[in-house]
Amino acid sequence: MIFETTICASATSGLGAINILRLSGPDSFSIVDRIFKSRSKKLLSEMKGNTIQFGEIVSDIEVIDEVLISVFKNPHSYTGEDSLEISCHASPYIQKRILELLVLNGAKLAGPGEFTQRAFLNGKMDLAQAEAVADLIASENRSSHRIAINQMRGGFSKELSDLRKELLHFTSMIELELDFSEEDVEFANRKELNLLVVNMMRKVEGLIGSFRNGNVIKNGVPVAIIGKPNVGKSSLLNRLLKDDKAIVSEIAGTTRDSIEDTVQIEDIVFRFIDTAGIRETADIIENLGISRTYQKIQQSSIILLMTDAREEIATIVESFLEIRKQVENQGKQLILVINKTDMIPLSILVKISEFLVLEKNEHIIEISVRKDINIDLLEKILLTASFIGKLDNDAVIISNIRHFEALNHALENLNRVKEGISINIPSDLLAQDLRQAIHYIGEITGEITTDEVLGNIFKNFCIGK
Amino acid sequence: MIFETTICASATSGLGAINILRLSGPDSFSIVDRIFKSRSKKLLSEMKGNTIQFGEIVSDIEVIDEVLISVFKNPHSYTGEDSLEISCHASPYIQKRILELLVLNGAKLAGPGEFTQRAFLNGKMDLAQAEAVADLIASENRSSHRIAINQMRGGFSKELSDLRKELLHFTSMIELELDFSEEDVEFANRKELNLLVVNMMRKVEGLIGSFRNGNVIKNGVPVAIIGKPNVGKSSLLNRLLKDDKAIVSEIAGTTRDSIEDTVQIEDIVFRFIDTAGIRETADIIENLGISRTYQKIQQSSIILLMTDAREEIATIVESFLEIRKQVENQGKQLILVINKTDMIPLSILVKISEFLVLEKNEHIIEISVRKDINIDLLEKILLTASFIGKLDNDAVIISNIRHFEALNHALENLNRVKEGISINIPSDLLAQDLRQAIHYIGEITGEITTDEVLGNIFKNFCIGK
Repeated sequence: MIFETTICASATSGLGAINILRLSGPDSFSIVDRIFKSRSKKLLSEMKGNTIQFGEIVSDIEVIDEVLISVFKNPHSYTGEDSLEISCHASPYIQKRILELLVLNGAKLAGPGEFTQRAFLNGKMDLAQAEAVADLIASENRSSHRIAINQMRGGFSKELSDLRKELLHFTSMIELELDFSEEDVEFANRKELNLLVVNMMRKVEGLIGSFRNGNVIKNGVPVAIIGKPNVGKSSLLNRLLKDDKAIVSEIAGTTRDSIEDTVQIEDIVFRFIDTAGIRETADIIENLGISRTYQKIQQSSIILLMTDAREEIATIVESFLEIRKQVENQGKQLILVINKTDMIPLSILVKISEFLVLEKNEHIIEISVRKDINIDLLEKILLTASFIGKLDNDAVIISNIRHFEALNHALENLNRVKEGISINIPSDLLAQDLRQAIHYIGEITGEITTDEVLGNIFKNFCIGK
Repeated sequence: MIFETTICASATSGLGAINILRLSGPDSFSIVDRIFKSRSKKLLSEMKGNTIQFGEIVSDIEVIDEVLISVFKNPHSYTGEDSLEISCHASPYIQKRILELLVLNGAKLAGPGEFTQRAFLNGKMDLAQAEAVADLIASENRSSHRIAINQMRGGFSKELSDLRKELLHFTSMIELELDFSEEDVEFANRKELNLLVVNMMRKVEGLIGSFRNGNVIKNGVPVAIIGKPNVGKSSLLNRLLKDDKAIVSEIAGTTRDSIEDTVQIEDIVFRFIDTAGIRETADIIENLGISRTYQKIQQSSIILLMTDAREEIATIVESFLEIRKQVENQGKQLILVINKTDMIPLSILVKISEFLVLEKNEHIIEISVRKDINIDLLEKILLTASFIGKLDNDAVIISNIRHFEALNHALENLNRVKEGISINIPSDLLAQDLRQAIHYIGEITGEITTDEVLGNIFKNFCIGK
């Protein structure tokens, strides 16, 4: 696939020390040669690939900046096209002027993800890999990073693509049988086909099963903090956030804005639900009442029920039992957090255990946010309750809803194929189910795409990627 | 000058598509070779300078990212040292992980401007050039950009440095005379010295004279909008801002936050003083009264006196004469802006001119902000009143207060030398004044520096530059 246009965009945001502007397309070198005075006096088009030139970007009347230009020659570039990266000083003014000059000389401003889209359409990566690029940029912790980089490096899509090719081969054979339908021949060995289908189903089921983990890793484990006013919900939240922020802000320039009210403990991100309510003067909001609490519980997979150590033990147990009833058989984790333990002389855990036998998804802990008692232990309990634990480095995990849906469709059709084989349905019907399964697998790797699908994927990219 | 440490930092902010991490120092290659698996299997230390390597950054247990690494070999790099730029995906997580790995392997995190400071100390640029780098990054319009880039490309400092060397030569000769003071010899020709000193003074005076322009260009021409409540001050300000914002926001990613309430018209930036007052409900603030208006007038070099076209002509003229009296002989520009001209049937300019003869620093214009009448003309008048006009592309302009002060000190001492020559003062006194002048010129170019001066200059740089 060859594009005729040359696109350009800034690949950095312009708030650091340098900015990178990117070009890709057949006229990259000739466009920039018109505005670049190389120190070596050579034209970019004469340069070898993967080399760097120093010089000046000039307009008709003035020097815009001293820059370094990295030269990439088709096909050895990100997009597979002739491509340049201009490293200039990080002034928004300079960035704007250079982009203007590029456009004046024939480049067009790139849309979101257009470089990666070209990389895909030029066969430099499959669609799942292209999608992983956006995930990689957005990755904020070790787990989401690992999913994205595994996927970008080929991950599951290569394997799916190979299996799909085998399936395609069988399907062609079966379709060939149709041409000889009078003669009752069988070009496609049904046993072998069945084996392949079962093999693919196992693979697809595995990937579908990984989605819950993948989704949680990408978006965080949803946690609800509930409890009466003034038990310390807001303080606990701030305390957990503080631990995390300290780590992230170690290195200047990293920002936490986008992950407000999520807490990362070891590899796992916890996302606190409806924290606005907790952070405002709690009493007013909490009095909105039971329905709101109920909603929070429904959305979460871990519930922190906070109580005050000075309350009557009966009251504490009662609250706990009430919530237990609400979440029964939903696989949620319930943690009873008894705060302000520094305000009472003795632990009340023993007394509580006289009234309360914990089930396997239940936990209990005494803490004091104010005196910083047992917060680390609570974090450990959250980790245990998250159900994710340590992941294999090479674990293949689906975190993309588009892949999840396509895999489910594929599985459905593979299942139909398997049943079809077992009851020996006519070849034409079998071929139809096979084609469907092949279609959905192809949607993941991008062997089957529509403009709409591509548009949806790349519109979420940033410009310059 | 050789540094023993290797520094690293992110040179971009991490909000775009890619991030650049920089290293500079003797161990750059060996540090990165420990965490980089090049696709070509070669070590970075074996690579030629100005080339690009593709590969993976890996920790003991996992792949962090696929990256491009640009290799720069001492002395052909920004700092003059062995240097690398790692281009990775723009995830704050990845950036943090790679920086961690670099530090674990022996690099140290760079302070603000530390790369540029090394470039200066390694003789890659003089101090004025180094300072221009920060100005260039901060440049927001054509004029400030032009000052910065001229300065970065050598601008005045090369010339000053050459003159300083000549002066140094003469001074050594004069100091030599002291050793032969018994013999009444004259190694330094006083006529030639006088010629050099006059030449330098002319140069230095020119630079000092450019400072007013330079300062205005860098910080904007200060403008006061004054007038009674409800004459339309706030609307005019918003209208002028709107024009400007439309231009700047053309290209995604550029931000205007830092230049709030400045308006760029062609090359010139206008900075509106005390706009908070105008932007709040004007009446309350304005009633704070005359002293506040007086202050605004004092701080500005252009005064926009706004009136309502429906007012009595006598009242308009009276207000104008009152302000004229306040700014008399201060070189300020006074623009009478008659707003709401759409609310009256005929122009009142002719009638006003019966009562009012404008002086050369005064202007008058009828506008309607609401109907968008004559706003462009008002912008033209502002440009004329700014006194700056079009600048030569190569005009050498001082915009840095540190340079301004050093030049003033140098001029003072040069003047003393000139007077000394004319009255034939003893060589030792002449040499002393010469040494002072040489010292101050050297402060600009960085031939004379103290740690304190360097510290002050580079602390204002961003990290990674």
